[in-house]
Amino acid sequence: MLNLSDIFAPSNQISNIEVNKESAKINHSLNVNVSVDCVVIGFDDKELNVLLIKRLQAGDEKAYSPYKLPGSPIYMDESLDDAAKRVLVDCTGLKYVSLEQFRAYGEIDRLRRAEDVQWLERTHGLASTPERIVSISYIAFVRQKKFRQLTETYQATWMPVSKLDDIDLAFDHRQIITDAIRKIRRDVEVQPSIVFEILPRKFTMLQLRAVYETIHGEKLDIRNFHKKMTNLKYIVQLDELEKDVPHRAAHLYKFDRVVYKRLRGSI
Amino acid sequence: MLNLSDIFAPSNQISNIEVNKESAKINHSLNVNVSVDCVVIGFDDKELNVLLIKRLQAGDEKAYSPYKLPGSPIYMDESLDDAAKRVLVDCTGLKYVSLEQFRAYGEIDRLRRAEDVQWLERTHGLASTPERIVSISYIAFVRQKKFRQLTETYQATWMPVSKLDDIDLAFDHRQIITDAIRKIRRDVEVQPSIVFEILPRKFTMLQLRAVYETIHGEKLDIRNFHKKMTNLKYIVQLDELEKDVPHRAAHLYKFDRVVYKRLRGSI
Repeated sequence: MLNLSDIFAPSNQISNIEVNKESAKINHSLNVNVSVDCVVIGFDDKELNVLLIKRLQAGDEKAYSPYKLPGSPIYMDESLDDAAKRVLVDCTGLKYVSLEQFRAYGEIDRLRRAEDVQWLERTHGLASTPERIVSISYIAFVRQKKFRQLTETYQATWMPVSKLDDIDLAFDHRQIITDAIRKIRRDVEVQPSIVFEILPRKFTMLQLRAVYETIHGEKLDIRNFHKKMTNLKYIVQLDELEKDVPHRAAHLYKFDRVVYKRLRGSI
Repeated sequence: MLNLSDIFAPSNQISNIEVNKESAKINHSLNVNVSVDCVVIGFDDKELNVLLIKRLQAGDEKAYSPYKLPGSPIYMDESLDDAAKRVLVDCTGLKYVSLEQFRAYGEIDRLRRAEDVQWLERTHGLASTPERIVSISYIAFVRQKKFRQLTETYQATWMPVSKLDDIDLAFDHRQIITDAIRKIRRDVEVQPSIVFEILPRKFTMLQLRAVYETIHGEKLDIRNFHKKMTNLKYIVQLDELEKDVPHRAAHLYKFDRVVYKRLRGSI
């Protein structure tokens, strides 16, 4: 069988990630036709943020697209899922993120920008780049407070989604992020339990509303929202108030997963 | 940029699909690193079926895996979505199927069976096959009655899902089909409206139960089911009975999308 590393060798040496050639049992070289990208969307109790990294180009501070999603071509000896996990840890330091396969991106012209191609070739030491790299994107929607410790290697940062218009993004990453936000919006629509995974166990109506407003990208009427939410039997008011707040303490609520399942349960 | 057809040429000639080299504006050759597979699940008012095709191997009737999903490597000049549409039409004759991207398959050993590799090379005229072909699968869940006209080129057939255990399937297609059924089950759980897309506009409780039983793969208690369903305000009993049936005519029901949306509507 054709081994792509034979084609690209010797320029196809892995540059950024340590490789122990001795211990490698199977072909540990890059498969430059397929990549993974991770879209981690975090909620920080105020707004949605997406986890981005910077391109590192020594002596080239005017790089075309400084921000990108954590991503990389896959290796011959790793599955897509393993590649996504590796990429996220290597690029951002985040472990234990529950990544879900989201969508493959394979438009013909996704490598149309010369700057993107040059960066790929420089970073991965390729003599040339294939016409197209199909990227399998992974998505995670997380409570940001659980994932604070970012590595500095690629200057990983939580970028507010609201500020994305103002920054330049590599490849088709703007499209990928837009699709990811749309997916989260739709998922919350059909399965509201997702909302409670990114809230603290006990939350206020203000916090709950902030999630919905952020996901939908618009302000919601306070009274209507409160009424609608308290009518839902799986949102239970606790006999407890917020603590240590400078304003009047609000009631705390919890999500009752058992009631939720009973009410929405299919056959 | 590296053009993979340069590497594989001249063996990488397209065999099965007519190509007009003169009119091709951009590189119309196979990208053998990425393929698409279409999982079309049909409901025929009784059971779930999956659309399969046969491998054509002249003079080789003892082919290892006679059945497979409609699929093909993509062309350099088509997007993934376009490839999926083309494949489905070319292999089965089905047009206007609403295909949704489902999942990418990229396990290291998905080309582990020599028979699969040989078939690939013969069919597409490849001198060799890459170590891995990542396949982007597409899914559709359809009312089978709408899609009867299958072409005979690849002997496209609706295979009952219940009979899949008894047949041999190429590559990791058994896994892909299993995942697709699981996805439909989960989708119906969180978004029951899907069920009504594969039922006639007016349906009986028996038909509705048949869908649920088929999707869940188990018999359901008739009384409980009836009670649960008639309690749902978006399932509306009509002032009409079944016609032209040999048994006692049952009541007809319809799905009220407006009520459904209001009841389940998020903020």
